[in-house]
Amino acid sequence: MSFKGRDILSTVDMSKEDFLEIMKVTGKMEELTKKEPVSNLLSDKIVAVLFMEPSTRTRLSFETAIHRLGAKAITVASAASSSAAKGETLADTAMTLDGYVDAIIVRQPQTGGARIMADAAKAPVINGGDGAGQHPTQALLDLYTILKEKGTLENLKIAMVGDLKYGRTVHSLSYAMAPFSPKEYIYCAPEELQMPEEIVKDMADRSIPVRKTADISEALQADIIYMTRIQRERFEDPAQYERLKGSFVLTRDLVKQGNPNISVMHPLPRVDEITTDVDDLPNAAYFRQAHNGVYLRMALLAMVTGRA
Amino acid sequence: MSFKGRDILSTVDMSKEDFLEIMKVTGKMEELTKKEPVSNLLSDKIVAVLFMEPSTRTRLSFETAIHRLGAKAITVASAASSSAAKGETLADTAMTLDGYVDAIIVRQPQTGGARIMADAAKAPVINGGDGAGQHPTQALLDLYTILKEKGTLENLKIAMVGDLKYGRTVHSLSYAMAPFSPKEYIYCAPEELQMPEEIVKDMADRSIPVRKTADISEALQADIIYMTRIQRERFEDPAQYERLKGSFVLTRDLVKQGNPNISVMHPLPRVDEITTDVDDLPNAAYFRQAHNGVYLRMALLAMVTGRA
Amino acid sequence: MSFKGRDILSTVDMSKEDFLEIMKVTGKMEELTKKEPVSNLLSDKIVAVLFMEPSTRTRLSFETAIHRLGAKAITVASAASSSAAKGETLADTAMTLDGYVDAIIVRQPQTGGARIMADAAKAPVINGGDGAGQHPTQALLDLYTILKEKGTLENLKIAMVGDLKYGRTVHSLSYAMAPFSPKEYIYCAPEELQMPEEIVKDMADRSIPVRKTADISEALQADIIYMTRIQRERFEDPAQYERLKGSFVLTRDLVKQGNPNISVMHPLPRVDEITTDVDDLPNAAYFRQAHNGVYLRMALLAMVTGRA
Repeated sequence: MSFKGRDILSTVDMSKEDFLEIMKVTGKMEELTKKEPVSNLLSDKIVAVLFMEPSTRTRLSFETAIHRLGAKAITVASAASSSAAKGETLADTAMTLDGYVDAIIVRQPQTGGARIMADAAKAPVINGGDGAGQHPTQALLDLYTILKEKGTLENLKIAMVGDLKYGRTVHSLSYAMAPFSPKEYIYCAPEELQMPEEIVKDMADRSIPVRKTADISEALQADIIYMTRIQRERFEDPAQYERLKGSFVLTRDLVKQGNPNISVMHPLPRVDEITTDVDDLPNAAYFRQAHNGVYLRMALLAMVTGRA
Repeated sequence: MSFKGRDILSTVDMSKEDFLEIMKVTGKMEELTKKEPVSNLLSDKIVAVLFMEPSTRTRLSFETAIHRLGAKAITVASAASSSAAKGETLADTAMTLDGYVDAIIVRQPQTGGARIMADAAKAPVINGGDGAGQHPTQALLDLYTILKEKGTLENLKIAMVGDLKYGRTVHSLSYAMAPFSPKEYIYCAPEELQMPEEIVKDMADRSIPVRKTADISEALQADIIYMTRIQRERFEDPAQYERLKGSFVLTRDLVKQGNPNISVMHPLPRVDEITTDVDDLPNAAYFRQAHNGVYLRMALLAMVTGRA
Repeated sequence: MSFKGRDILSTVDMSKEDFLEIMKVTGKMEELTKKEPVSNLLSDKIVAVLFMEPSTRTRLSFETAIHRLGAKAITVASAASSSAAKGETLADTAMTLDGYVDAIIVRQPQTGGARIMADAAKAPVINGGDGAGQHPTQALLDLYTILKEKGTLENLKIAMVGDLKYGRTVHSLSYAMAPFSPKEYIYCAPEELQMPEEIVKDMADRSIPVRKTADISEALQADIIYMTRIQRERFEDPAQYERLKGSFVLTRDLVKQGNPNISVMHPLPRVDEITTDVDDLPNAAYFRQAHNGVYLRMALLAMVTGRA
């Protein structure tokens, strides 16, 4: 079950063993970084960082991972400066980059775009997010964060709050945690933005207890509360948005009334769905979560290049 | 005939000896990369990569070359983020960069702009393309590709297809191959886009047999077929474009009817002038050509900094 | 008086001892660079270079400094590609970057923005310019340039010319040189653009002789003449701009009529306020000034990370 040369396009096709292997290597990368902030593990490797839509956080996280491994990055930070602007196909871009680099990280707005590049390139491709499609490094860093916060992935009660209908991260999280026998998923959202029925059914098929609610105090009884942003544009009726939005904002007072050991996660950037007075509570895991992304991305890069 | 400190602005002023020296060093860089993907040859050098118009492929190729030599890059990837936006002259930019870096790579839309920078800077300047002017690294990587594909630069039959009127690469190629006693140049284009008379005459002056044709099957008898894109904008009459474009598209079937040893080249990006079913034929040299660009750019950087 | 972990937000709160310490380390960095163009001093450090408004010169100077110290950079070169575009606060950006890097350099258009990031980040923050606010690395490299050109910072006659009303650099310079007992400040500007009364009064309070003039020949008797650009937009009456602008342009002839040892400085980019025939006079210090910026920025990075 080596990851050498493997493309990382989605977490959907990953087994529990895959997840555990990745968690193990991510832990090693965190230890390595503590001992040696910039190592030589990939000092002979060059990595393409191709961001055809802006996502500074993800791009800088990948580039930090590249530097911490001693590798070099060649970067495209916006679509405007890319060859795509000249009408080149993703496949041609991939075949060209093949001669430059040892791995390709790509984020672009076209669902399935990462797979097109992976099919064309000999070098392993890591999907940094493809539109409404997959964003596997987010799902994997979420898993690593849960493992670090709770000491285990097994048998947890996980609440997801906010826009569960369109939120890519909570869909991926539902599937990624499924092999670890969750005690319960608490889907907390306004009715218009509840988890799609297809996913709820998939979870039922996996014998995972699912509870739907619009009451955030129920969500606060979980081991993990995963917050997401509710966007005004999702509502046909703006008045409905105004009436609802306050009910899905996490405040310091709310956290204090919940499970004292609850960990608060968020994929960031946040706007106002978690008030800043939560930030210095020990429960606030969202910046730790962002920082874990570097270790996770180091792990994937080391694994696909055969160095871990 | 040392290249140390020399500006690389154009291939027009290069001698046959220059070309051969550059080919030799490029070969060494390819060997070096195979042994040591990231070397220390220029580990104490910093290189400015100043792209004031977008050209991802060329920029990433240069940056890969810089990394493979162990050097560091400081990059401007678009005009919008450059000081030129504040009205600074190219000469002032050059004199400022002089204090930062050991070599300057510049691409900008103004013909002759690279020379202005070279005149102002103490550091050697490499022209990464200046508008309708020169793009010497493209011409040199084309030469290296021909040498690699054919084993020699001497006595070859070379076809150039497509937009020969405006195509900068085929102009440069005509001149760059001239010292190597070409057996024949086959210029294959619609009449409106044929090679400028001035260049045809220059080739005649050098005693190079030139054939003009609009029939791609003639071009397919050459040792090298160099494809370029025909742009709709070049035609006053759109109907004329529609009528003609199909005649200058290279397909798998056409390649199979031509010289079995023909090498297909293209400066990339392609749009549809070579169908993708050509890609896995051994004749398809265009991605190898792109990859050769890295070795060629390594060679130039090593030469102008006095390290090769 | 260690600088380790200290934010560099402004020169206003710096003591004479601070300035002297920074000058000393900057000198060491210049020597180090001469011996070892790329050192290992910060080879285990990663630095964020966050430029949310374009400023190529400053950004490339910082990145060169990072490379010369052997450190790694993660870069945002424009606001468009930043998370701010998604509504993230500067504080959240800072707390995220905290997990990635050892120091943060930030330039953004909001006055006080650098302090907001510094308050949120554990990592030291260096202000690369915040709108109409502070630009401390410019002020410090100006000081280092004066020290190098004159051999001392003490007891100098310093002329400042051009737009003294809005020119951030000349305001900072007035304060930064104040502890070094200037012999005289000559403020040379059209009346509409003279130094703000508040600053003139602050200098009087520090017992610094101040002379106001609109005659550049008076300014040319100083030890240092610091030129700045007069922008057309500053005048309500365009005719007034046209009538005045010529009087504040420095030419070769003017320099030749002034103090033979005068050093001409300019924060760059210049447009036409210094004619290019001044460039090759030994008095022209403005490109040396730009080059000094790299040593100064190396010094600050080494100091705040505890390595100098």
